[in-house]
Amino acid sequence: MKVGIIGLGYWGPNLIRNFMSHPEVKTVYGCDLSDDRLNFIKSRFPAAELLKDYNEMLKKDIDIVAISTPVDTHFKFGKMALDAGKNIWVEKPFTATSAESIQLIELAEKKNLKIFVDHTFIYTGAVQKMRDLVDSGEIGAIRYFDSVRINLGLFQHDVNVIWDLAPHDISIMNYLMPNSKVVAVSAHGIANYYDHENVAHLSVYFEDNCFAHFHVNWTSPVKIRKMLVGGDKKMLVFDDMENFEKIKIYDAGVEMSSKEKIHEALVQYRMGDMHSPKVQATEALSLGAAEFIKAINENRDPLTSGKDGLNVVKILEASEKSIKNKGKLIEINQYEYAK
Amino acid sequence: MKVGIIGLGYWGPNLIRNFMSHPEVKTVYGCDLSDDRLNFIKSRFPAAELLKDYNEMLKKDIDIVAISTPVDTHFKFGKMALDAGKNIWVEKPFTATSAESIQLIELAEKKNLKIFVDHTFIYTGAVQKMRDLVDSGEIGAIRYFDSVRINLGLFQHDVNVIWDLAPHDISIMNYLMPNSKVVAVSAHGIANYYDHENVAHLSVYFEDNCFAHFHVNWTSPVKIRKMLVGGDKKMLVFDDMENFEKIKIYDAGVEMSSKEKIHEALVQYRMGDMHSPKVQATEALSLGAAEFIKAINENRDPLTSGKDGLNVVKILEASEKSIKNKGKLIEINQYEYAK
Amino acid sequence: MKVGIIGLGYWGPNLIRNFMSHPEVKTVYGCDLSDDRLNFIKSRFPAAELLKDYNEMLKKDIDIVAISTPVDTHFKFGKMALDAGKNIWVEKPFTATSAESIQLIELAEKKNLKIFVDHTFIYTGAVQKMRDLVDSGEIGAIRYFDSVRINLGLFQHDVNVIWDLAPHDISIMNYLMPNSKVVAVSAHGIANYYDHENVAHLSVYFEDNCFAHFHVNWTSPVKIRKMLVGGDKKMLVFDDMENFEKIKIYDAGVEMSSKEKIHEALVQYRMGDMHSPKVQATEALSLGAAEFIKAINENRDPLTSGKDGLNVVKILEASEKSIKNKGKLIEINQYEYAK
Amino acid sequence: MKVGIIGLGYWGPNLIRNFMSHPEVKTVYGCDLSDDRLNFIKSRFPAAELLKDYNEMLKKDIDIVAISTPVDTHFKFGKMALDAGKNIWVEKPFTATSAESIQLIELAEKKNLKIFVDHTFIYTGAVQKMRDLVDSGEIGAIRYFDSVRINLGLFQHDVNVIWDLAPHDISIMNYLMPNSKVVAVSAHGIANYYDHENVAHLSVYFEDNCFAHFHVNWTSPVKIRKMLVGGDKKMLVFDDMENFEKIKIYDAGVEMSSKEKIHEALVQYRMGDMHSPKVQATEALSLGAAEFIKAINENRDPLTSGKDGLNVVKILEASEKSIKNKGKLIEINQYEYAK
Repeated sequence: MKVGIIGLGYWGPNLIRNFMSHPEVKTVYGCDLSDDRLNFIKSRFPAAELLKDYNEMLKKDIDIVAISTPVDTHFKFGKMALDAGKNIWVEKPFTATSAESIQLIELAEKKNLKIFVDHTFIYTGAVQKMRDLVDSGEIGAIRYFDSVRINLGLFQHDVNVIWDLAPHDISIMNYLMPNSKVVAVSAHGIANYYDHENVAHLSVYFEDNCFAHFHVNWTSPVKIRKMLVGGDKKMLVFDDMENFEKIKIYDAGVEMSSKEKIHEALVQYRMGDMHSPKVQATEALSLGAAEFIKAINENRDPLTSGKDGLNVVKILEASEKSIKNKGKLIEINQYEYAK
Repeated sequence: MKVGIIGLGYWGPNLIRNFMSHPEVKTVYGCDLSDDRLNFIKSRFPAAELLKDYNEMLKKDIDIVAISTPVDTHFKFGKMALDAGKNIWVEKPFTATSAESIQLIELAEKKNLKIFVDHTFIYTGAVQKMRDLVDSGEIGAIRYFDSVRINLGLFQHDVNVIWDLAPHDISIMNYLMPNSKVVAVSAHGIANYYDHENVAHLSVYFEDNCFAHFHVNWTSPVKIRKMLVGGDKKMLVFDDMENFEKIKIYDAGVEMSSKEKIHEALVQYRMGDMHSPKVQATEALSLGAAEFIKAINENRDPLTSGKDGLNVVKILEASEKSIKNKGKLIEINQYEYAK
Repeated sequence: MKVGIIGLGYWGPNLIRNFMSHPEVKTVYGCDLSDDRLNFIKSRFPAAELLKDYNEMLKKDIDIVAISTPVDTHFKFGKMALDAGKNIWVEKPFTATSAESIQLIELAEKKNLKIFVDHTFIYTGAVQKMRDLVDSGEIGAIRYFDSVRINLGLFQHDVNVIWDLAPHDISIMNYLMPNSKVVAVSAHGIANYYDHENVAHLSVYFEDNCFAHFHVNWTSPVKIRKMLVGGDKKMLVFDDMENFEKIKIYDAGVEMSSKEKIHEALVQYRMGDMHSPKVQATEALSLGAAEFIKAINENRDPLTSGKDGLNVVKILEASEKSIKNKGKLIEINQYEYAK
Repeated sequence: MKVGIIGLGYWGPNLIRNFMSHPEVKTVYGCDLSDDRLNFIKSRFPAAELLKDYNEMLKKDIDIVAISTPVDTHFKFGKMALDAGKNIWVEKPFTATSAESIQLIELAEKKNLKIFVDHTFIYTGAVQKMRDLVDSGEIGAIRYFDSVRINLGLFQHDVNVIWDLAPHDISIMNYLMPNSKVVAVSAHGIANYYDHENVAHLSVYFEDNCFAHFHVNWTSPVKIRKMLVGGDKKMLVFDDMENFEKIKIYDAGVEMSSKEKIHEALVQYRMGDMHSPKVQATEALSLGAAEFIKAINENRDPLTSGKDGLNVVKILEASEKSIKNKGKLIEINQYEYAK
């Protein structure tokens, strides 16, 4: 296989390194407008073939075009690649609007090409382990999902902190709850420094008795990356800042004999053992690359396809409308499919 | 001074012990309908004088009536005490509605009696230290305030998790930002078990460029009690689960040369030293009792007066309207006064 | 039963409270030379009968004398009580010398009286859980035992930091390894401030392939209370500063195909799941009191008898000889008995 | 400058990368007996010139030979390089015996060549900050030094855990206390798996009122890298497992009005604020390489010279004699020089 990468900024070298080390990949092309970046990449990856012109790259006999550019160019570059008959790998978030996502998905389907959206976290050992735990039934039905991703982080020029940080956590939530349908979204926050919010809170309502919340912040003095998944059997905490013991499963919960009237109910609290399973440490990006190549070979959608990208974009898009209106509730329709 | 306490449940013994150990308090009366509680209190505090009839207690020559009963009875017991010419100490939250709060405040003013609302946290060494830091100007203007108070905690029969847990944090916020005016509130959450929410998120909008958020949860497997205060000079973290180093001040921040257009601005990130000041360990409740007695002697409002109680109740009341309407924005008018 | 307590200092009120709340205890006597302490105790425990004269107390019809005085008086007060036909409860460490311990043990046996040494930690949920784990075979054979107990703590007038802090950890070690025989001891440290060491390290050699080390320090800026138990199957960490998850069991270890020559051996490292069992929170002192009363009723040695006290004193005594000689190895013979 | 590296194992690539990126270094040669390693290095560093024969490399016009081979070969390769007129960089520990260290130091002095011993930690921002704090007098005189470095780590074939892990911490201790003279050493431990100890405790006695202890362990289920430095003014904790706040300075201490008799003394405990200074994050190895090149250019000893290497080896050598004799006290004479 041959892979061409457009956009050799912060994430580009990781893409080059991981595709290069895949046994089926023979050649990796790189494309960027900046001579500085091209020179830097050349010094680190002498074997990569580098170009300045995207059209030139599309003429090459490549199987995959990986798009690692600002989000508002994803659609343009993605469409050009699909038109040229290439499968596409797109960094998160998939596109700037859900309409763009749908157009790319339909175009790819028409041409029998595959789309991979780089929701990298899905390929981490921790998220895979969480999904296993949910699938096994050990957690029970998920009652609430709570995510915090805050840091003193780099402000983005073009998007607010939700578009920048929340896609990771939204994609994890969707992956853990494939059968839970999001129906509405509300977002609050503040833009203390310029026109995009640096602190934001996103509430997500589901069709069933479940609720999710995402807290993102570029201006926190401490770095927190923590997720709580409250199941009706057990509860799970994922703390990505821990070097070891990233996942903890608590045999904790509440049981009521009657749901309606608590003063008549027998409430029982349970706080038992905690278990922290070992988590695989393989680099997520390498597993993502392998999955996409495998999906192309098997002529199927990869684990994180365009539809997954679309479902994340729908929530982001709604959050934007909401946050500009102080939390106005925005209803959405998620793409549903049999996983 | 003589003190009478109504409601000898969970918090009652703490009130008895702290009032008894105040040098100016001569007699402490206790009042409860339950013989079991009266017997238990008698065995632990043989010197306390115990009664079953609240009317009997009000006839005694007491200076302070402390009300430690369910919130929906605060108004009734408070009004009776004020009518009988007693100063009142009321557990948080002050009353079930803001109308009740206003009525008690006006009644007390008319009769020149004092109201103390037991926002205990205000009297902790940690909150006093935070207020000092804010007052000194070291933190700068507060940009955002973020609070998390979650636990596997006791469900309340009569109120949701916001009414139960958030008063602590709202009172701290109000105390740290006496000049910031809250203008609107939005609350989201879910009631997984019965009709009151067990998970909730409260967003608070201010007149100026500031934003606050409160996350409360009765069904978390881990106990977190953490506050972030983002100033435009420094940032502060208060972690109440730490035995030592409860407060950390970070010389961290973001500076922009131009507010409007980030792509033209020079953004500078600063992450310098951290400082953790020593925090006084005196029991907050004992300092609260001393403050109320002093305030009565000096014929002035205590640090946590009925007006502070009212401002918390206004936010709780609005949160209730909001959470039942999926985060509908509810505007409020806070009581303003020169502190 | 009737209990008399001599020494109403720091620990005395805990003894009074716990014996008083035991259903079989009818009367608790207290004895102290200080009028201030007697008055303080009277105000907190009006039901206790207080005396100044120890001889007077011994004349009372009491079953247990609890000795909570400086260690160099334990022998004198213990012997008087045994001579007067009373069972004795002695605070740790048992006595100032092993000869004193032996004399008390023999006297008690002759008179069929029981000795309880207050190694309180043995009765904590955490230590009971650790013993269960060792007994179940899950940990395997213990290869090493490592304990750290450091703090900015109160200097003792009469003994060094080993005599003050290490008895807790030595008693736990002995309890977890009833069949491992200590054969020699070496201690290092420094006395920075006066003639008793404030920092000390105690190494303990066993008959078999096991080693233990104790680090104690009165002058550490941070408080650490942590134990590592390295088994050849699993490894255990006990962190007493944790509010939750005090005990963690790691499925970790090293396996070698040949013991003698590592360069020829196949070494395998294993780092699997971690498990943190729930630990009972009942107050240890109350369980200790209950055990002693039960042991007297059943005419048997309690779980922490004079012999357990003696084995701890033997190690302390040897450590003293060693530390004054810069770690000179001191051989010892532990009392052995079928547990 | 030209640099030749012998031994391209685990640490070799780091040496190549750091020397290559130094602006004064023109060529980097690499030398290893293994074709596999040479091929691997070639693929990662195409610009490096690789050889199999060490003698060939010594014939090149190189200024520095960096020796990254097993410790028992350091002397042989170091002597060959010095004989060939090259400055030498030697990985820690410097040599297998102090006699070898002395011989290399004398040979280098005779030929006016420089020796750099790679005590990398000395060049970390954390250790530099600690030295600044000690030099400034803020910590006061150091009373004790306590270091823990434990992990489930790779067993070494040829040396025990002290030789493997303690050189880091001993070099830091020596660097922080240049005027404190070590006079004796005692080591305890156990070899649970083969003939070299996997758990060890090293006590170090000084001429003055100071004491140091090192705890190293290859078989701990948890990874701890922590240092306590107890000064008579303030106390310092260095926790290398923290991502942020690696260094904490505690305004804590003990003061006595009389040293001799504690029961007559007025003891005062102080526990004030804590301060965590920002620590530079520049890669230590790059700063080490820069220091050595600068030292050669300025014809002076580098910060971590052969004499520093010798002083560490003297302690290691003594620890070996001690641990094989259950902690027998071994006296040593450290090399003294005006820093």
